[in-house]
Amino acid sequence: MPNPTAAILIIGDEILSGRTREGNMYYLAGKLTAAGIDLKETRIVSDDRDAIVGAVQALSAAYDHVFTSGGIGPTHDDITADCVAAAFNDHIDVRDDAYALLKAHYDSRDQEFNEARQRMARIPDSATLIENPVSIAPGFSIQNVHVMAGVPSVFQAMVATVLPTLTGGAPLLSQSLRIERGEGDIAGPLAELAEAYPDLSIGSYPFTQNGAYGSNIVIRGTDGAMVDEAIVKLTALFSA
Amino acid sequence: MPNPTAAILIIGDEILSGRTREGNMYYLAGKLTAAGIDLKETRIVSDDRDAIVGAVQALSAAYDHVFTSGGIGPTHDDITADCVAAAFNDHIDVRDDAYALLKAHYDSRDQEFNEARQRMARIPDSATLIENPVSIAPGFSIQNVHVMAGVPSVFQAMVATVLPTLTGGAPLLSQSLRIERGEGDIAGPLAELAEAYPDLSIGSYPFTQNGAYGSNIVIRGTDGAMVDEAIVKLTALFSA
Repeated sequence: MPNPTAAILIIGDEILSGRTREGNMYYLAGKLTAAGIDLKETRIVSDDRDAIVGAVQALSAAYDHVFTSGGIGPTHDDITADCVAAAFNDHIDVRDDAYALLKAHYDSRDQEFNEARQRMARIPDSATLIENPVSIAPGFSIQNVHVMAGVPSVFQAMVATVLPTLTGGAPLLSQSLRIERGEGDIAGPLAELAEAYPDLSIGSYPFTQNGAYGSNIVIRGTDGAMVDEAIVKLTALFSA
Repeated sequence: MPNPTAAILIIGDEILSGRTREGNMYYLAGKLTAAGIDLKETRIVSDDRDAIVGAVQALSAAYDHVFTSGGIGPTHDDITADCVAAAFNDHIDVRDDAYALLKAHYDSRDQEFNEARQRMARIPDSATLIENPVSIAPGFSIQNVHVMAGVPSVFQAMVATVLPTLTGGAPLLSQSLRIERGEGDIAGPLAELAEAYPDLSIGSYPFTQNGAYGSNIVIRGTDGAMVDEAIVKLTALFSA
């Protein structure tokens, strides 16, 4: 059985402006690989209602799981929850369970549970809350879409909650070999090796570094013995 | 007149596996902002024919310009050029002009211009070549899609060739203010400021750092005087 598939949707102008580097994608990519869920696509869209709704609908239809990051805080530019509700034609408002969690949190810290903070209790009717042990404001899952915060520590905590609830497949294993020869010199034998192992994914990632150049060859697959066998053959091919 | 819009399409399993961090997106995002071209979306897809063809068609239809990175080398997993040709129903084969460039390059270095390297001369019939001063193998532009290499030095050189040929708009200017208060405390006044300046984009990006927490507020717009005015008001709001 093939592994389940996944997509990540990152929401936020600050990534597209080049101002902030995105780390949640890489964090989750590694976790998904280990869980045997194949990450097939990542999209980054701006804080724009149509863009978010369209991306949620397209990715939800195309992949088994969708993970979103960003846009669920208290400020006016946090519109993800409302957009995800719209994507599924679900009703959204401040929900009692999320409201109670947040009210208890702010009351205990003597902080005002004002209108802005109450925005973070806006949860679609049919969604299940995702616990946030870091700063309480919950994420939520609706159908196959998991809506999580953009702040890395909160995102990671939410991933830790959600991921064990999903059925994964065989973890994707990989081995790599650094070959200090031009891709043009290794491409022929490499293509033959890829043809001989149709169940493996063999990628070539060229580098130039301090005047040296070459390519990192990465062999990936769920059958560890087969990955081992292929990397031995690869090494033999280019050790001459 | 609104600024032209753009999308970036990154092609490569190595990004989705979490193995390699993507830098071309951030590089180009900064250049586009300076050129007055609004980056609206980035997609990362795997080395999969259907995924690449679908993304090229969708992004080309949705935005004024599309920039792709990766998958135009000599190895078997480099399928971008063929996929872009398919996306536009264009014929593709080794093209004389690209072949001549590459042959002269490898001849001058006494390197074999073998079948794998000749793959890099596969260019759609209707495309215009993008010069590659670093390693010769050209990129190409077809309709509103600019197909560039994934190796950062080559990508950057190709951006330097392509960008001046595009008509940009007013550069997007930004100013930011770091506020060491919770987003929930500043969200109300911030939303009022955003309403007062509908032509500006005002984003709030929370941080936690060494126990301190707060939010970086970024105000963006093409009218520098208006951005200045808004940042002064913002500073006054939260300096009390």
